[in-house]
Amino acid sequence: MAFVLHPRLMADTAGIADWSLSRVLLMNDKRFPWIVLVPRRPELGELFDLDELARGVLLGEVVRVGEHLKAWAKGRGGCDRINVAMIGNMVPQLHVHVVARVKGDPAWPGTVWGMGQAVSYGAAELSRVVAELRDVL
Amino acid sequence: MAFVLHPRLMADTAGIADWSLSRVLLMNDKRFPWIVLVPRRPELGELFDLDELARGVLLGEVVRVGEHLKAWAKGRGGCDRINVAMIGNMVPQLHVHVVARVKGDPAWPGTVWGMGQAVSYGAAELSRVVAELRDVL
Repeated sequence: MAFVLHPRLMADTAGIADWSLSRVLLMNDKRFPWIVLVPRRPELGELFDLDELARGVLLGEVVRVGEHLKAWAKGRGGCDRINVAMIGNMVPQLHVHVVARVKGDPAWPGTVWGMGQAVSYGAAELSRVVAELRDVL
Repeated sequence: MAFVLHPRLMADTAGIADWSLSRVLLMNDKRFPWIVLVPRRPELGELFDLDELARGVLLGEVVRVGEHLKAWAKGRGGCDRINVAMIGNMVPQLHVHVVARVKGDPAWPGTVWGMGQAVSYGAAELSRVVAELRDVL
């Protein structure tokens, strides 16, 4: 079986890049700088469905996003914390959220999942942010 | 500086074990089988504050908890998904949540963080669950 991105992730995100393991996506919600990594392997649900080697690659990709997203977000509205999560209660396909959080953002100090309604980027802004993140991540 | 567990984690959890990197804690909230791993190193906030070797150890410890907690929870109320998260908006000390979730639990399909009030175990039940988890994790 080939990897196919879950339709919910397809609908809610924009593609930034394919890295060695993961597809790198921007959540289309301008309230938060919010990246989603999806390992491009079929039939994965839990972290421990990945073999040990691939788990190490995924960890490296999470760290890469976290460090660079934090630096980038600091230059915009600020960044006090990176939130990392694998949840999958709604979208069973294994995916990792990496979200830059700042004191006073619309969910602070709570979490972003299920918090209010997403605020989409405009089309031009979405393209610009995707291009910027493709460079900095 | 020595490792000191953050007072909020100290108040909200019971100790299960010290593994090679992390202190393994049970969240004192019987609504969810909920483990917290805290790397026993001072001055850590973000995942990427850990050196690469220790990050790999932490990942192994997360996988170990996830697999065994899922099997254990299946024998109790069931387990449809393991949620894993590093948040740290309220407790800055680096810690990882590993939570067994089942369809129909009090937060499903939402996340557990900030969801309602914790329901403490009774003292005897807490000791029993800690002892069980010390064996199975």
